[in-house]
Amino acid sequence: MSLKITGVRITPVAVQDPPLLTAIGVHQPYALRSVLEVETDAGLTGIGEAYGDDPTLERLHRAAPALIGLDVFDLNSLHRRVVGALGAAVPTEVLTPLVGAGSQGKAVAATVAAFEVPCLDLQGKAVGRPVVDLLGGPARTEVPFSAYLFYRWAGHPVAPGYPEDDWGEALDPDGIVAQARRMVDRYGFGSLKLKGGVLPPDQEVETVFALREAFPGRPLRIDPNANWSVPVALRVAERLSGVLEYLEDPVGGIPQMAEVARATDLPLATNMCVTSMEELPPGIEQGAVRVVLSDHHFWGGLRATQRLAAVCETFGLGMSMHSNTHLGVSLAAMTHVAAAIPSLTYACDTHRPWQREDVIAPGELTFCDGALAVPTGPGLGVSLDHEALARLHAQYERCGVRRRDDVAAMRVVHPDWTGKQPRFS
Amino acid sequence: MSLKITGVRITPVAVQDPPLLTAIGVHQPYALRSVLEVETDAGLTGIGEAYGDDPTLERLHRAAPALIGLDVFDLNSLHRRVVGALGAAVPTEVLTPLVGAGSQGKAVAATVAAFEVPCLDLQGKAVGRPVVDLLGGPARTEVPFSAYLFYRWAGHPVAPGYPEDDWGEALDPDGIVAQARRMVDRYGFGSLKLKGGVLPPDQEVETVFALREAFPGRPLRIDPNANWSVPVALRVAERLSGVLEYLEDPVGGIPQMAEVARATDLPLATNMCVTSMEELPPGIEQGAVRVVLSDHHFWGGLRATQRLAAVCETFGLGMSMHSNTHLGVSLAAMTHVAAAIPSLTYACDTHRPWQREDVIAPGELTFCDGALAVPTGPGLGVSLDHEALARLHAQYERCGVRRRDDVAAMRVVHPDWTGKQPRFS
Ligand SMILES: [Mg+2]
Ligand SMILES: [Mg+2]
Repeated sequence: MSLKITGVRITPVAVQDPPLLTAIGVHQPYALRSVLEVETDAGLTGIGEAYGDDPTLERLHRAAPALIGLDVFDLNSLHRRVVGALGAAVPTEVLTPLVGAGSQGKAVAATVAAFEVPCLDLQGKAVGRPVVDLLGGPARTEVPFSAYLFYRWAGHPVAPGYPEDDWGEALDPDGIVAQARRMVDRYGFGSLKLKGGVLPPDQEVETVFALREAFPGRPLRIDPNANWSVPVALRVAERLSGVLEYLEDPVGGIPQMAEVARATDLPLATNMCVTSMEELPPGIEQGAVRVVLSDHHFWGGLRATQRLAAVCETFGLGMSMHSNTHLGVSLAAMTHVAAAIPSLTYACDTHRPWQREDVIAPGELTFCDGALAVPTGPGLGVSLDHEALARLHAQYERCGVRRRDDVAAMRVVHPDWTGKQPRFS
Repeated sequence: MSLKITGVRITPVAVQDPPLLTAIGVHQPYALRSVLEVETDAGLTGIGEAYGDDPTLERLHRAAPALIGLDVFDLNSLHRRVVGALGAAVPTEVLTPLVGAGSQGKAVAATVAAFEVPCLDLQGKAVGRPVVDLLGGPARTEVPFSAYLFYRWAGHPVAPGYPEDDWGEALDPDGIVAQARRMVDRYGFGSLKLKGGVLPPDQEVETVFALREAFPGRPLRIDPNANWSVPVALRVAERLSGVLEYLEDPVGGIPQMAEVARATDLPLATNMCVTSMEELPPGIEQGAVRVVLSDHHFWGGLRATQRLAAVCETFGLGMSMHSNTHLGVSLAAMTHVAAAIPSLTYACDTHRPWQREDVIAPGELTFCDGALAVPTGPGLGVSLDHEALARLHAQYERCGVRRRDDVAAMRVVHPDWTGKQPRFS
């Protein structure tokens, strides 16, 4: 069975994104993704989804020509070819500082990941099996996700004509509880995650307490994206001990995380200080984290996420899953790999409810009781809506956004905004 | 594509084994293996090979009925079913103390491994791909093996009629050099491994020096299977510094290995003190080993060996491969997984040249320049010779051996032999 790559199409898209507040600023009106279509000599096409910012697109376009002729089962060769194509001068910029620092290894991992998913989609289509079966089979048939709650404005401070959503403002405990209520009612999420690092820490603690009161018994998390000093983190950890299932990236860097970890019984989680295999040994040795948030986009793909799981299981670390703004192709990939990893026991993060646009066919992935059923069709089990893809690509061409920049977006309102971290000390 | 297990056939076999001397005694005249044939509703049969001693057979027979109906792609479920079938009272005896201590986890891992290989063989046969492609594709297309040199007697001290081989005695440097010469001439092995722990350590050092002189530039190893005290190991390590590519299990247990490791620049390797995922964290923390010898038979299968590789790569440990006496089905499985792991850079161990009998079709795996080409046919790429299987099963029925027992075999000659370790202190 020949299944060699004959062509790669990379289509950047822009999707409308609400003004979600983050530790360093606010989401821009458009979030960028890219959709990959990988064609083969068997006539089958595999699909994938990656970031859509300029540095990512540069890496993808540098790697793509080197993949012509690659057997889609030969993922070891995919890695070798990407390393060779990117070369030593690979641009190492990361999408956002909210996922840690960049490195050559991480740039390679992200590029491999972008192409590995279409290869696995193709493998599955060729053999008539869902991707989860190529990863060892399902440890679970439904993957639970968490409600991802954001402090936010009602609308972007932008030019007229931008179609705002109807979620409204959320800048205090009542606003977040209302947002959570709507999200839980609509999707059935069992776990609640608050994106923090936005308001003064004590106000965010009050929001967590309000969530606990409104949703008793539901697992809660807060993620200030390293926007707290160690003393602030210690004070918050003390107040939230016994309230959170985990505390995510309260401070920046392995040594500071380790310092907080030693002083609290709350498990610390990260998608910032340990985001590559190289960072696992120091993270483990220093006891900096007890939960690693996987993300196949930057850990190197679905199989690399399983390698991460092997290390986490071996060293007794829990696993959850990180999310940036993404579309349905990535959601399918996340669901397959989460299903295949027995130790991924926390509900996964997803930004999906915040997007009203998608590139997959409508209705293909639907949250039910806060979970997604693992697709059972061949490959990823989702298909591209080419009309939507063309529309979102046109939106990309039009919108002018070429990089994610939460800081610049905030400067529209606060010209002196620096995004410097930690903001709260 | 349905591919569900409908039946499992487990055939114990005995193969003639030469009187190879080990740290605890000598090989018996017959080594036991079992051949697994797993049948599916698709009409395809997958094959595998496991130990053939009584405790292993008990575990295999306990697990087999629970696998009826299992989808061969669902390896997560294979693990769950084996755990359930073996229960809490699983016999934990290991094949031999030469592979470390037994545990419930290791008993589960060995049982999963025995069935995982036929499942992967079936997957490959169903999709028309070699097993290596299901493991991420080949990092190399040829897998180098090492010459496995043993001090040995010419013949077994047994009843007449046993067909001895023609390798003759090897009990000193000249004997081992002659053995190595014949093995290198016949198979082309590039690396040489001496099974030690047999003669007084200084005599074994002399043998290593003789090998270095006879085969300049070839990587050398010695493996005394923890038969040395720490002081002996330190003395040997000093004499062999710069001579060996690694020193394998000079002493027993992680703390003692760590003590030796701190005092020598020789990398220490193991298939005794770190033989399960549970033993990796203490082994790594204490710096006990720099090379782990994988073995899919007890690490839990081919995919588990890749999980081991993920941990080793992450923590900068090298990987080599361990061997017990085995037949061609296991050799094929070893070759596929070794090919799929980029960091498995040392030549693999194999006992294969010592056996004159096999269950696979003649000529299917042939060493060329000390390496095996990774089979390219579907699945494992080897097929059972059912006539040979029947003959070796009859030999099993006849021979009376039901467990591996190097100590008892040595007692035939030395009635007071205890096999107590370490013998040299
Ligand atoms: Mg986070
Ligand atoms: Mg050994």
